[in-house]
Amino acid sequence: MWGGRFAEGPSAIMREINASIPFDKALWRQDIAASKAHVAMLGAQGIVSAEDAATIAEGLDKVAAEYERDGVPENWDLEDIHMTTEARLAEMVGPVAGRLHTARSRNDQVATDFRLWVRDAMDQADEGLAALQRSLVTRAGEHSASIMPGFTHLQTAQPVTLGHHLMAYYEMLRRDRSRFADARSRLNECPLGSAALAGTGFPIDRATTAQALGFERPTANSLDAVSDRDFALDYLMAASQCALHLSRLAEEFIVWASQPFGFVRLPDSLSTGSSIMPQKKNPDAAELVRGHTGRVIGCATALMVTMKGLPLAYSKDMQDDKPPVFEAAGLLALSIAAMTGMVAESEFRTDRMRQAAELGYATATDLADWLVREADIPFREAHHITGAAVKRAEADGVALDQLPLDVLQAIDSRIDDRVYKALSVDASVASRASYGGTAPKEVERRVTEARQALGMTGR
Amino acid sequence: MWGGRFAEGPSAIMREINASIPFDKALWRQDIAASKAHVAMLGAQGIVSAEDAATIAEGLDKVAAEYERDGVPENWDLEDIHMTTEARLAEMVGPVAGRLHTARSRNDQVATDFRLWVRDAMDQADEGLAALQRSLVTRAGEHSASIMPGFTHLQTAQPVTLGHHLMAYYEMLRRDRSRFADARSRLNECPLGSAALAGTGFPIDRATTAQALGFERPTANSLDAVSDRDFALDYLMAASQCALHLSRLAEEFIVWASQPFGFVRLPDSLSTGSSIMPQKKNPDAAELVRGHTGRVIGCATALMVTMKGLPLAYSKDMQDDKPPVFEAAGLLALSIAAMTGMVAESEFRTDRMRQAAELGYATATDLADWLVREADIPFREAHHITGAAVKRAEADGVALDQLPLDVLQAIDSRIDDRVYKALSVDASVASRASYGGTAPKEVERRVTEARQALGMTGR
Amino acid sequence: MWGGRFAEGPSAIMREINASIPFDKALWRQDIAASKAHVAMLGAQGIVSAEDAATIAEGLDKVAAEYERDGVPENWDLEDIHMTTEARLAEMVGPVAGRLHTARSRNDQVATDFRLWVRDAMDQADEGLAALQRSLVTRAGEHSASIMPGFTHLQTAQPVTLGHHLMAYYEMLRRDRSRFADARSRLNECPLGSAALAGTGFPIDRATTAQALGFERPTANSLDAVSDRDFALDYLMAASQCALHLSRLAEEFIVWASQPFGFVRLPDSLSTGSSIMPQKKNPDAAELVRGHTGRVIGCATALMVTMKGLPLAYSKDMQDDKPPVFEAAGLLALSIAAMTGMVAESEFRTDRMRQAAELGYATATDLADWLVREADIPFREAHHITGAAVKRAEADGVALDQLPLDVLQAIDSRIDDRVYKALSVDASVASRASYGGTAPKEVERRVTEARQALGMTGR
Amino acid sequence: MWGGRFAEGPSAIMREINASIPFDKALWRQDIAASKAHVAMLGAQGIVSAEDAATIAEGLDKVAAEYERDGVPENWDLEDIHMTTEARLAEMVGPVAGRLHTARSRNDQVATDFRLWVRDAMDQADEGLAALQRSLVTRAGEHSASIMPGFTHLQTAQPVTLGHHLMAYYEMLRRDRSRFADARSRLNECPLGSAALAGTGFPIDRATTAQALGFERPTANSLDAVSDRDFALDYLMAASQCALHLSRLAEEFIVWASQPFGFVRLPDSLSTGSSIMPQKKNPDAAELVRGHTGRVIGCATALMVTMKGLPLAYSKDMQDDKPPVFEAAGLLALSIAAMTGMVAESEFRTDRMRQAAELGYATATDLADWLVREADIPFREAHHITGAAVKRAEADGVALDQLPLDVLQAIDSRIDDRVYKALSVDASVASRASYGGTAPKEVERRVTEARQALGMTGR
Repeated sequence: MWGGRFAEGPSAIMREINASIPFDKALWRQDIAASKAHVAMLGAQGIVSAEDAATIAEGLDKVAAEYERDGVPENWDLEDIHMTTEARLAEMVGPVAGRLHTARSRNDQVATDFRLWVRDAMDQADEGLAALQRSLVTRAGEHSASIMPGFTHLQTAQPVTLGHHLMAYYEMLRRDRSRFADARSRLNECPLGSAALAGTGFPIDRATTAQALGFERPTANSLDAVSDRDFALDYLMAASQCALHLSRLAEEFIVWASQPFGFVRLPDSLSTGSSIMPQKKNPDAAELVRGHTGRVIGCATALMVTMKGLPLAYSKDMQDDKPPVFEAAGLLALSIAAMTGMVAESEFRTDRMRQAAELGYATATDLADWLVREADIPFREAHHITGAAVKRAEADGVALDQLPLDVLQAIDSRIDDRVYKALSVDASVASRASYGGTAPKEVERRVTEARQALGMTGR
Repeated sequence: MWGGRFAEGPSAIMREINASIPFDKALWRQDIAASKAHVAMLGAQGIVSAEDAATIAEGLDKVAAEYERDGVPENWDLEDIHMTTEARLAEMVGPVAGRLHTARSRNDQVATDFRLWVRDAMDQADEGLAALQRSLVTRAGEHSASIMPGFTHLQTAQPVTLGHHLMAYYEMLRRDRSRFADARSRLNECPLGSAALAGTGFPIDRATTAQALGFERPTANSLDAVSDRDFALDYLMAASQCALHLSRLAEEFIVWASQPFGFVRLPDSLSTGSSIMPQKKNPDAAELVRGHTGRVIGCATALMVTMKGLPLAYSKDMQDDKPPVFEAAGLLALSIAAMTGMVAESEFRTDRMRQAAELGYATATDLADWLVREADIPFREAHHITGAAVKRAEADGVALDQLPLDVLQAIDSRIDDRVYKALSVDASVASRASYGGTAPKEVERRVTEARQALGMTGR
Repeated sequence: MWGGRFAEGPSAIMREINASIPFDKALWRQDIAASKAHVAMLGAQGIVSAEDAATIAEGLDKVAAEYERDGVPENWDLEDIHMTTEARLAEMVGPVAGRLHTARSRNDQVATDFRLWVRDAMDQADEGLAALQRSLVTRAGEHSASIMPGFTHLQTAQPVTLGHHLMAYYEMLRRDRSRFADARSRLNECPLGSAALAGTGFPIDRATTAQALGFERPTANSLDAVSDRDFALDYLMAASQCALHLSRLAEEFIVWASQPFGFVRLPDSLSTGSSIMPQKKNPDAAELVRGHTGRVIGCATALMVTMKGLPLAYSKDMQDDKPPVFEAAGLLALSIAAMTGMVAESEFRTDRMRQAAELGYATATDLADWLVREADIPFREAHHITGAAVKRAEADGVALDQLPLDVLQAIDSRIDDRVYKALSVDASVASRASYGGTAPKEVERRVTEARQALGMTGR
Repeated sequence: MWGGRFAEGPSAIMREINASIPFDKALWRQDIAASKAHVAMLGAQGIVSAEDAATIAEGLDKVAAEYERDGVPENWDLEDIHMTTEARLAEMVGPVAGRLHTARSRNDQVATDFRLWVRDAMDQADEGLAALQRSLVTRAGEHSASIMPGFTHLQTAQPVTLGHHLMAYYEMLRRDRSRFADARSRLNECPLGSAALAGTGFPIDRATTAQALGFERPTANSLDAVSDRDFALDYLMAASQCALHLSRLAEEFIVWASQPFGFVRLPDSLSTGSSIMPQKKNPDAAELVRGHTGRVIGCATALMVTMKGLPLAYSKDMQDDKPPVFEAAGLLALSIAAMTGMVAESEFRTDRMRQAAELGYATATDLADWLVREADIPFREAHHITGAAVKRAEADGVALDQLPLDVLQAIDSRIDDRVYKALSVDASVASRASYGGTAPKEVERRVTEARQALGMTGR
């Protein structure tokens, strides 16, 4: 295909390192679609005859049907999906197939195909994330008033509700979706017609092909269009942040499922056993989600390093854009699906959660706040008084609200018996009704908003 | 400050590993601003008295004035900018200072401060990039018709114009700016009032503090608000992509400035000499920009790894969010400024560029295209004929347009003497007038659009 | 310093981006040492006169004394530590200072200085790790028979001893030390005398300078010597792996210190409190160690990206080698020290550990193994029988060894009452006496070996 | 296989995320070998009968023969290569197959298999690198006196020889090989017998299995043995550094093959053409090698992130260790092979190299050195004089050695006509005979040493 200039064919090693068909065959649908849009435009512009255009379009449909039925053949000599398809087309329709490549190059062709693929991956991520959000919102609605310990530094900090905790992940995924949406919007310009690097002298109509392929507009600079992989990096970076969020949720399921926590019973369908320890029920799915984060970040790193310092325009290094994107997309889809199931089907052991919240002096802040509010003590001083109360309770081996009033008053005489109302976990949680706070009412308000945003009907 | 619970103070190693004041003092302006917004709201809501609120606000102004004048003191015992400021405030206004920390925690405080800082960094990146775009557009306007070789694989491919080449970077930076804008919009929610993790029982008004600090709205979930560092990652990822673009431009300046290329004379003001080789004029600034890309990407990697697998809510690991962001912001600002100067002040040696474009059979595609257009030969066949012509020209040691007509016709009889018009670099460039192509007219059109978008007046 | 070729000085931005003195002043001791070795050799070889060599050497001592007393001045015009020192030397001893730079260049000078610095960092890492190993071995010796649950997937798997668990980290650090040792050995060749890139025509003696600076030999190729930063990458990669090990130990301390686990009471000296929650005792040091891992890995990534695709020989990008190494070395030293304190001073709550080990059917494998050994049942079948026993025990809410014999025999008739001996955690642990197993005797054996390897005397 | 404890089978998503057989089937040879060593030891120790051991061993051979002939079947229900093999074994030899898993677990089994695989990958890297070194040394021997410009900052700095330049890569690869060797030595301990995490109560003999599999010794701590992936990281880090070296060599071939440089004609067998530009001969192989560097570094990043913060012992996250290692190993092998061919078969255009060396004032340092040596001028002053000479030559548009003596003497009267001898590129190169310098004699000496080290005979 490189014409008559080469005296000697590629060596075995060259064939192997050069062939992208083993992975870029994943682009076949996009390649066919882009070729059809291109040839229709060539026909409409009179660059090829209407008859030839029709012949080529029909031929492409036949190739597509073959691929659908038999898969894409991997012939390293044909290098990539573009040459593979064109070669098969030529077998089917004869030399007229050669007219398809008029006014384009593999450089703009692959840029177009890959954008189409990545755009689909973005749409799929968005759908998956919406499903996971629905899981979260549903479970949060069930548990808007279920008490659990809120942790900072994995230390019991203040009581919160499980619903509030789950809704934190709803917010993270909201940002993930907005990130994919921004990336999609930035991606959605069509490189086709940029040709090898400089545009073309044929009277093409790039607006038409752009529109036919669902793009907002053609790209504005042909050199940039064939050298740009920002859209792939945008995808990988959005995927990395999303994977990081999932890794946090996975970590929590793993910790919660441990015997000492016992906050959750994982669904059998998402757990595994051990080949040697018959009692084991392992949170493998969550661990794999957490582990996959490394690989998704590795994919983003890979493409960043590959793109560093490349001069314009297309360099072959850029062929290494696809494996990381394909790998990350597969891992991300699986991770989102696994977490959706885990959230939907886990049994939250709210008794254990409440019990844990009642230990650990989780309402100490409430005591301090009570002192500020009721006794008008500056917060820093109230904090100090509370510290002394906690120390005493620890020494006595009791909860804060089990300290007798005289003991509390010995620590600070301004304390009176109204304080005990502030020291229950339910009172604590109910009181935190500031916007975005953990109070059940506030959680329910946000759940309702979220259900509307997600188009969920009913409760 | 941790109250009376601790029997023993921190060890020396703990003081050192724990203290963030050496770097987070960079947040002092943001910390003062957020505290002022917070205390004004506390006063307005009657949570602290108007008098106390006023005292605290005045005190904060005095602290700010001190910092402005003397810098922020680094006392490791005070850990961070928040405690440093509050301690100084207490020295100035007495125990009333303790009321400032009502209904907030360092967790929401640092999240607010850091968002404000990152928002500024995004704005500064945007301004810097606009300036670099103006440089590019100005030089592109000067060189809309200057011929240079367009490269793919760093091999001469087709002639392009220098203006077109420079405008490719305009497009990249346009995407960078849109990335920073998207990130800014996603960042612009105010965590203040989320308190430690659960919200607060005090009747605060989060909408007011959000507005006072220029945020669109308060964050929707307090657990998320104190655990989220997406905004920092968004910044680092936008910075990484921007740095990658700059690394490509830098690479080109370095290659162009080499003796064999000789496409550019760098400004003395952005070059250095050698301590041992007196003849050297080194493109150090460009190399440092290219090198800094590694460090910016390293910063993004750092925060991704740090965030991986952290359970909710705040964990101290997240204190490691700031050094990478501060470092990346400094490197990026410097890199953008250096490239702005380099683009503005370099002398492009258009004679050398044209000369290079005329070598290397850069118009071979034009011959193939001519065969398609004028002799109605399918592109693939035309490509093959052209390959034979290039091989002959190479063997004869001449340029394509120096092959006599009879030689060309011996290769393919359908060639006639009109072909020579297609084989000059000027004709080649002028012909590529498709949208986004390299034709001078098309470049001028895009330059004009860009000037308008950048608010540049005059020609 | 660049001689008379430059018409115009560097711009402000150039001065800032180019100046490395803000960070490379950390190399001053190495720079002085290398200059002294160089000038001594120049004198010995008669390249400079003995008198001049002596004058320069004395001058260097004076500069060093100044630096020691007053710190290194940061004058951006002098760019780096090399020019800063030479300029000060010239002020002290006059033009003869200019002879110091004979037969060398900043390229080999900085390569030498930096190797010396990194070599010291490797030695410090080794010392720190040995101290941490001593902590681990000491605590392991105390707890060779303390029972705790061994986890896989953070699920209780089989009982192990705390001593065995701590010794796992001893092994990891053993590998870390071997990695630093290998890196040190690979680093230990001296670049000095490679000059700018090509070697020198002066009759220098590189073996002598190499030996004077503690190197094994001179580097073998001058182009490589000034272009190579493998030693810095070796350091960063060893540091990354070490940080990963520390992140795992830190994670365990964090999880163990949580209220539901309660396996450890952290030393007050390595914990912090909360500005808002008076009851908190946070494992900040462990979290910072875990968080720092991200930054250390970010440093390794930074230098890898920076070095990618650089042609020979020295490029200015390589100036970005130092900040990541300096940062990583600081973070690593602090992390090792913090973990050393944490291991040495934490109170292990062995009662809680034993209690947890007794839950969770940790001895199920022992039942399966007993069936294999005593009833000659293939392991896979034994595994299945045990699974049924666990299911029954779970349903009855009892431990495995609380299931009555008739119940066990109903599951499999080959079980007899000897089985109960196998089902206690102590018996389980004692039985795993295979090489490297968790049996107290085996742990003690390895502790003794380790104490010898570490030169620890007494028991 | 998880016994009777699970009420419900895994969901479709679980089957997919959990199955490692699609990639870990690559371990089949290692899995068979380790199982055979294990069962032989079980038999020798009397843990299974001699007869059963023989049956199992024969069965394993048959399974291996099947795999060799038909490939390894991918049944997701069997999860991984270990269960796949054991299930097939059971079909062949009946329930006795269940005895194979006595005294081991998948945790130690996979650790053993994967170490064996990685050890092979290290050996293959070493062989490949030795072949590339032989290519380099052979070409260096041919070109020990071929003059080319030595670059710093990609600016002509001083003349060097091509042989010297190629030998710089020999040194880099020497370090790469030493890195793989160190990693191999650290890896070479056998985890088999560590069982799930705690060792085993069966009287196994780990020394025997270790020896049978070519390991130096058994691992010393069972918890560490099943939790450790240092050996995989060691491999990935050595691979990353190696890939970085190859990226530099690839960059040079790409730049050298560009028309303005024209230093090299790439072999047809390692180049490609263009689908649109018939004149192109692209250095695709070199670009792919440079691009692959990103992916190899991405693989190292992936595993680092995955391992961060994992508590002991085995977690399922660690299943993500294999894809990055397999990918990196494939990319590295291909990259090494491609560069071996490129070095061996490229045609170096030494005429173009010499011509470039003669431009660019490459001998300016020689003038400065001459002034130091012959006129006893301090180097810094000599540097300044030379700078003036270069400026004059630039202004006159001539080479340094074309400046008439009176012009030189006007710049500094101490110059006499002996200076011209120092200003030719041949004299310059010959003069740099310091150890490791570029003088042809010195290059030849090192080539001879290298040939001996590589076991190359003849010249």
